[in-house]
Amino acid sequence: MNNNQHKDLVGWALPTLQLLLVKFGIRFVGVKLGILGLGTVGTGTVQLLQDNAGRHPLLRDVQIYRVGVRSLDKPRMVELPGAVLTTDLAAIVNDPQVDIVVEVIGGLEPARSLILKAIENGKHVVTANKAVISRFGDEIFTAANKAGVYVMLEAAVGGGIPVIQPLKQSLSVNRIHTVTGIVNGTTNYILTRMQAEGISFDDVLADAQKLGYAEADPTADVDGLDAADKIAILASLAFGGRIKLQDVYCEGIRQVSKTDIAYADKLGFVIKLLAIAKTVNLPPISPTLREATYASTPDHPISVRVHPTLVPKAHPLASINGVYNAILVEGEPIGQVMFFGPGAGAGATASAVSSDILNLVAALQASTATPNPLLSCRHQDYCQITPLEELVTRFYTRFLTKDQPGVIGKLGTCFGKYSVSLESVVQTGFQGELAEIVVVTHDVREGDFRQALAEIRTLEAIDSIPSLLRVL
Amino acid sequence: MNNNQHKDLVGWALPTLQLLLVKFGIRFVGVKLGILGLGTVGTGTVQLLQDNAGRHPLLRDVQIYRVGVRSLDKPRMVELPGAVLTTDLAAIVNDPQVDIVVEVIGGLEPARSLILKAIENGKHVVTANKAVISRFGDEIFTAANKAGVYVMLEAAVGGGIPVIQPLKQSLSVNRIHTVTGIVNGTTNYILTRMQAEGISFDDVLADAQKLGYAEADPTADVDGLDAADKIAILASLAFGGRIKLQDVYCEGIRQVSKTDIAYADKLGFVIKLLAIAKTVNLPPISPTLREATYASTPDHPISVRVHPTLVPKAHPLASINGVYNAILVEGEPIGQVMFFGPGAGAGATASAVSSDILNLVAALQASTATPNPLLSCRHQDYCQITPLEELVTRFYTRFLTKDQPGVIGKLGTCFGKYSVSLESVVQTGFQGELAEIVVVTHDVREGDFRQALAEIRTLEAIDSIPSLLRVL
Repeated sequence: MNNNQHKDLVGWALPTLQLLLVKFGIRFVGVKLGILGLGTVGTGTVQLLQDNAGRHPLLRDVQIYRVGVRSLDKPRMVELPGAVLTTDLAAIVNDPQVDIVVEVIGGLEPARSLILKAIENGKHVVTANKAVISRFGDEIFTAANKAGVYVMLEAAVGGGIPVIQPLKQSLSVNRIHTVTGIVNGTTNYILTRMQAEGISFDDVLADAQKLGYAEADPTADVDGLDAADKIAILASLAFGGRIKLQDVYCEGIRQVSKTDIAYADKLGFVIKLLAIAKTVNLPPISPTLREATYASTPDHPISVRVHPTLVPKAHPLASINGVYNAILVEGEPIGQVMFFGPGAGAGATASAVSSDILNLVAALQASTATPNPLLSCRHQDYCQITPLEELVTRFYTRFLTKDQPGVIGKLGTCFGKYSVSLESVVQTGFQGELAEIVVVTHDVREGDFRQALAEIRTLEAIDSIPSLLRVL
Repeated sequence: MNNNQHKDLVGWALPTLQLLLVKFGIRFVGVKLGILGLGTVGTGTVQLLQDNAGRHPLLRDVQIYRVGVRSLDKPRMVELPGAVLTTDLAAIVNDPQVDIVVEVIGGLEPARSLILKAIENGKHVVTANKAVISRFGDEIFTAANKAGVYVMLEAAVGGGIPVIQPLKQSLSVNRIHTVTGIVNGTTNYILTRMQAEGISFDDVLADAQKLGYAEADPTADVDGLDAADKIAILASLAFGGRIKLQDVYCEGIRQVSKTDIAYADKLGFVIKLLAIAKTVNLPPISPTLREATYASTPDHPISVRVHPTLVPKAHPLASINGVYNAILVEGEPIGQVMFFGPGAGAGATASAVSSDILNLVAALQASTATPNPLLSCRHQDYCQITPLEELVTRFYTRFLTKDQPGVIGKLGTCFGKYSVSLESVVQTGFQGELAEIVVVTHDVREGDFRQALAEIRTLEAIDSIPSLLRVL
């Protein structure tokens, strides 16, 4: 018997002992949590777990064993025994008593290092940290697979909406081809109010900041970075491959004007910040090709992107308003399913964190030596991401032109030269001396469209191109 | 060692052997399915499982071992080896080789008996049969718990929408207080067209029957019976107690007129057939009371009902149109989450059936002796159902009255006598000689409202009460 086999036997003996205890009616003792952070999410989670009557009975087996905080003196909304609170976060992830580490401090460091240390120490991890997972998921899941522990992240995307677990389980019998989400509540709130009240981005942002719906530094939200983190995570689960965050094209909503919202409305669209992951150029399906396609392959690249998008009013995502989030998953043979709910907030996020804890408690009590493939993140290869110029989509563009005859003809000729087929060209009115022309294309290759635009910019009749938006 | 302990040891030895095999790299052999029925859902499921590349890799461990059909000679859309097809359904549920029985024949018998026999033989069951589960869930789950097997039913409600598993897992950390569903595609299709086109129920039904969206005998759909089956199942999962189907109040859409749809529209509502399960009269929350509330108790009765309902246009369910289904779950602390998708169809239902198979394959491979509490249906007690007259809701009612002065006063007096507070009373116009009056109430006790209506009916000025609808 070599050393590895010896380790295997030890790894097997313990669960088997637990299994015997359970079979003979000896109750499994509590699962000990070490919670890192007692901010909004941490506090919500502690409140949920302390007030556990009327919830799933398994939660009663959970013990809040340690909670790591920055300061012991800060007044708290939850009562915890003195011995539970500590400022020594490293001690929590190193404590042999701790079964599950719940990381809700946010930010990149020390979150990343603490998660990795917890994994190294054989602890399961629950995290709400989309930034860490989207940037260091590679390192973290490699370590977790090696250590045979789970890293659960339901709260990282879509707040309370159960979407991570359905992607790992129920939906994974499908061939997913598209995941489209409204995954940032702040930007959806801003766009909803711009649409409803006809006011500008800057005015709504200022008001949203006053009301606490937007941060003092709104960059992560309004520039789409938060949504990019989230779609990278969703894409990796839906397509079974890792995603490099720098491959995610990201465009925020600062450039969305009330003028475009009004035109979009007339054309039958609302403007939403969508996070999209989509297979592209699916070749004709042959069984041999398909064999290798659970992880995305060079034959099945995907596009992953965040940008403001014109959404047809009848589309399920068009009616998602305010701070709500929704994630639409399309696959074969299921068709379209959509998950809708609160994208943030203490209660919603605590629900998601606790559902991960519940899954881990069930896994710990099952005392099995085989990891549950419906909980773990198995992907190891990287998805191939299509460059943006290869994207095939529809565009909405607004031009300001000199008021000359023949301008529309010149635009049309230029687009035609680059194989850009137009659905509609409408002269919508005037801005001062300049004529305003709105163009909507059929599906075109983004690279072709960009080339056409570059040439159009050089036309003497063109004053400027104030808007360029993609159409769903 | 008594006999039970002996059985326990045997029950433990087998999984432990498998566990050893897995630890030492010996691959778990295939899971053998016995599928009962090869209609739309059965065929969809076989197609999905046969064409498994690009789906979750665990599905590759599934072997379609037997498929029970009524006739061997019928042409089929799937190819199966001759030995797989059989007309002997009893032989499938009795075959010791079969690990999982997939019941997709529908109807009450022989489905019920075959499911019970499969359970008795220690097989896990996947069923899409809402009628059997809503009527015989009691018997079936009692047998399953006794035999230590799982009965999975994702496909029984909401077609492909993953809602059963989230209710068992993620959402169960919440205290659910309301489940509201559009769970019947046929009636939603009919109401959507009545709304959009301003035509009558009979005209849309006839057309829906021609198009195959409604059955030749549409009773189960249009009278709400199908929706009642489904809400009984959802309620039992959400509230952790069994439901007697006869306790579910059920009212279909035959009485919904285009006139009421038009008035509802003016008042800011759409009319939907909703299936609702809701806690009622929640007492002030005290920790002692809460202790016992995971299963519904006399202190926390629920109302379970199906009826056409006026839904405010801004409500998430208002924009669910056509044959789509949606289920809105509300709980503490999550708030509102909604699941949306195709409520029927071969592909969607096959996705749900296969997701149950996937969960069972994972459970079988985990080789644990403890049943996974996140897969099983644990409830054993019955929920207490509030009688309809105790329901507190808003009402919309339309009266035809003689064109006399003082009629509105008489209505108001009569409602006031029974504590029915009115939100609006509008004389909307005339039908021939008769004045038409539409009344919307505030929240009232249904019993009080009914008593007021009974007295109003006796008033000389009242011709008739053509409509009575509840308001969400």
